[in-house]
Order: sequence, then C-alpha cells, then structure tokens
Amino acid sequence: MSDGVGTKGRDWLMDRVVFRQWCRVPVRYNDLDPLGHVNNTATAIFFEEARCQLITPKLKAHGAHVDMVLAATSIDYRRELHYPGEVEIGTVLTRLGSKSFSLAHGIFQDGICAGTGEVVLVVFDLERRTALAPPDDVRAFLETLKAA
Amino acid sequence: MSDGVGTKGRDWLMDRVVFRQWCRVPVRYNDLDPLGHVNNTATAIFFEEARCQLITPKLKAHGAHVDMVLAATSIDYRRELHYPGEVEIGTVLTRLGSKSFSLAHGIFQDGICAGTGEVVLVVFDLERRTALAPPDDVRAFLETLKAA
Amino acid sequence: MSDGVGTKGRDWLMDRVVFRQWCRVPVRYNDLDPLGHVNNTATAIFFEEARCQLITPKLKAHGAHVDMVLAATSIDYRRELHYPGEVEIGTVLTRLGSKSFSLAHGIFQDGICAGTGEVVLVVFDLERRTALAPPDDVRAFLETLKAA
Amino acid sequence: MSDGVGTKGRDWLMDRVVFRQWCRVPVRYNDLDPLGHVNNTATAIFFEEARCQLITPKLKAHGAHVDMVLAATSIDYRRELHYPGEVEIGTVLTRLGSKSFSLAHGIFQDGICAGTGEVVLVVFDLERRTALAPPDDVRAFLETLKAA
Repeated sequence: MSDGVGTKGRDWLMDRVVFRQWCRVPVRYNDLDPLGHVNNTATAIFFEEARCQLITPKLKAHGAHVDMVLAATSIDYRRELHYPGEVEIGTVLTRLGSKSFSLAHGIFQDGICAGTGEVVLVVFDLERRTALAPPDDVRAFLETLKAA
Repeated sequence: MSDGVGTKGRDWLMDRVVFRQWCRVPVRYNDLDPLGHVNNTATAIFFEEARCQLITPKLKAHGAHVDMVLAATSIDYRRELHYPGEVEIGTVLTRLGSKSFSLAHGIFQDGICAGTGEVVLVVFDLERRTALAPPDDVRAFLETLKAA
Repeated sequence: MSDGVGTKGRDWLMDRVVFRQWCRVPVRYNDLDPLGHVNNTATAIFFEEARCQLITPKLKAHGAHVDMVLAATSIDYRRELHYPGEVEIGTVLTRLGSKSFSLAHGIFQDGICAGTGEVVLVVFDLERRTALAPPDDVRAFLETLKAA
Repeated sequence: MSDGVGTKGRDWLMDRVVFRQWCRVPVRYNDLDPLGHVNNTATAIFFEEARCQLITPKLKAHGAHVDMVLAATSIDYRRELHYPGEVEIGTVLTRLGSKSFSLAHGIFQDGICAGTGEVVLVVFDLERRTALAPPDDVRAFLETLKAA
C-alpha cells in the first residue's frame, strides 16, 4: 500500500526501549476467534485500553466533559496473540499538535513483538462538541511520553 | 503523523462511486460506548464483516483450511456512527500481489461517509501455517473488485 | 440445578406462536469463538438488541434520562448458532410489576429454536438513580406484549 | 419470575466464604456501555473467563477435542461494575452429574458483591460432537470445588 498501512515504517516500534509507558492486559478467552488466536479487533481494544489507562485520568481531572476521540488508527499484525496469556502495550508520543496528538504502540506477548501501530487522538469537549487545546498539565504529561 | 495514518490520502474513498461491492450491517446497541456513539473498534468489526461476507466463501470453497489473515489495517474516523441505524461498507481492491492483496473501504451511514480505511490480507493455509497463492478463481474474483 | 437454570421450565418458549414481537439480527463473524460457533455471550447481546429495539424508544420518548436496567437474565442454550446467517428473537411479556417487568425470549435460526431465556428489567431514572414506575403509554405498550 | 431468574435463591453467593476458587479480571474501557457502567454482557464474559482459567486446562490435558459447552446460564445483577477497576469472580461447584456439572459464581468489585449466577456445563467431545463423561482426574478436580 502506498501510504503507510505497510509495516516497514513502524519497524522501530518492535524494540521495547523506544516506549515510555507500559500497560499490561490479560487476554480473555472471549478475545479469540475461530482461528483459535486473538481476533484482530482485540488489538484495537488493547490500544484503547493503553490510552484510557494512561491519558484519560489526566483529561478527566479537568471535568467529565474533557475527553479525547480517535481520528485515525493503524495497526500492523506481526505475530499471533495467544490465550491464555497477557499482552504488554508500550506507548510513545510521536506528535503533539495544538489540539491533537499521535501515539505509537507496540504490543508484546512473552517478550516478543506481535504488533505495532499508531493512533491520532483529538482532545475533545464533549459538551461543546469541539476540539480543545489540551490543558497545560496534560500537555506537560504528553511531553513526558515523547521518544527519548 | 508522517506515514499515512492521516486521512488525506484516502479522501477518494469518501465517494461511493469508487466501490465495487457493498455490505450492509445493522448497528447494535452493544456497539456503543460511554460517549453514546459507536465505539471505534466496531469499525474494525464492520470491515471484517465486509471481507468475510465477500471473500471468505470463495476461499472456503477450496477447503476449510484455506482462509485469509489480516496483516495490517488503517482506519480514518470521519464522523460519529449512531444507533439505531445501519452502516454500509463499500469495498474496492487496491492491490493484488502473489500471496496478499489490499482492500480499501468506506463506511457510510444515512448516505454520509463516516470513515475510510485499508486492510492488507494474506491468503493463508491454516494447516501448513503458510501464505498461499490464491486459487485462480479467487484471483479472478478479486480482479472484479479492482477500481474501475 | 434446582432453581430454573435448567431448560425444562421454558420449553413453551420453543414454539414461535407464543411471541408477540420479533427482531431480526444478522450474525457477525465477530460473534464466533474458537469452537467455530456463535459464542454464548452473543445470545445475551441478541436479547439486549431485541429489548433496545422494542422498548427503549418508548422510554426515551419521555426523556433521555428514562431508561431500563437489567436485574436478572437467564438463558438456555439448545442448539448452536452459525455464521453466516441471521437470528430471529421473539419477545413476550411474562410479568408487569409496578417498577419492573419480565420478558421471555426465544432465539431462532433457520426456523429452529436455538435458545430460550428470560430477563428482569427495571425502569430507571438515570439522573435520580432510582427505579421508576413506567409512564402510562409505556405500560400500555408492555401490556400488548403479554402472552395471548 | 417463577423459576429462578429472581435473585433470592442465590443470596448465599453474596458471601465470599462460599467460594472455592477465585479469578481476577481487570475491567476494560471496552466493557462500558452508554450508561457509563460495565455492560451486562461483560458479566457473562467474566463467568466464561473464570471457568476457562479454572477448568479448561484440566480438560485440554486429555486432548484438544475435550472441552465443555454451556447449556444454561443465569445472572443476577446486584450492583453496577465500574471502570477503571478489576473484578474478582468466585466459583463453587453446585452439582456434578455424569456428563454435566453446575457452577455458581459471585462477582465482586472493591470487596462488594455486584452479581451472582449459575451455569450448567456439559463436558463435550468436539470431534464426535457428543457429551462425554469427564475423565477421572477432572472429576476429582471438580469435587474439590464443591461447597464445604
């Protein structure tokens, strides 16, 4: 594909040292599909879980109406994920704009990279239904997630 | 983001005329999340549904062990999807390789494009655990999905 | 089991004529589990879909804060559900209390009963966080769902 | 309801001392629904997870074709489950038949019982598609799950 669905541009995310934060999620039997492995959509759930654990509490500290919405996502599936087991999701910030930012993730099981990906998130005021500049402390926190 | 998670490269998929096949899926209450709209992971489920309806039967006609696995996916979220309602998923082939191919999708609700995306699929022998050249009739079918 | 998880008490729900309303839901590939059939939790989703299509709009007509919550559910799994295909969910009212009511369901695929069950629902004010007597028109509607 | 969907018959499961085994599962953001609490269907997933962690490995030790299928389930919803957080699922055996058995569960969050339920499971030969007497060691293990 011409524009980045291919995995090559994200090979750097297979190395655990690039990540600034980690989240651990046990795989559930319910994540499996007829092929006996974790269904592809579970990886999107794992990425969601990583950002909700890491960033949502910082946003919600400014009010229940402060949240983020997903603008784009991209995932490279590199190996099967198995059950039982758990996954580790690494997170690193790849872009910090005025009202949006991008996170890159690696997903690992038993120490081996099973997938990589990126997401574009927009800080969002749920009441006014508009994008929002992240509050200063959130911006400062996001800065700590930048690649070293 | 530098490499294609951004939506611009896929704006052409917002036009219904580019798609060669369509699949309709009713939204479920269970697709909703705390923001009251369809959760982002449901879009991955809708893409999965489109290809399983369209292509899986052609593969399975060659044996239960002939299937496809997802190598990469990319989704642009352009509008909220609502419940109750249904979505229409348009499909067009963007690449046909020796053992893999790429599909692009647009997802529409009430006639309006709510998202676009692409997936890379590998034809796979589930018994031998190896990639497989698609059988001739499958290849011929995939050709019919090419953009006009 | 001593108290009704067994299926015998609900055999009458295997007969389509007992139902007052029907809802059709296409099965999704994503409903399947490693056994290659529809996972048990999907049946709970199908029951949820039936009541959300049938009753939620009647409640919401009285304000976004008027809803129902599930107090109890019971499902008998009688046959496997398959993909591709669709299910039909039949609904009949089995009890109408002052603030709660019970629905019984049958789930059919290709005309054959694959499961039966019952749910207890409480009409609920989401703002005040208390149970609510159903508005008169909702009560009148629920009466129409009673077994003949 | 006349036959056990009501919660009273299972009040004894609100006491943690009755359970013989425990399983811990982190709640995911993806378990939430538009009411902002964990969706009812997640409780069925938590029960499934408890039995898959506890019993499936004992069955699979006798071959990939030895499994169990769900014949019936019943859940009482007593309190909302929240995110972030985790749930603890307690398990106790309530019946051990020749080819099937029943488990009762309690689900707890922050030490408080949020739900109770029972499931009927049939030991199953996936190849022959027939119910199976559980192997001796599995039967011995199930005996250890009996209420004291």
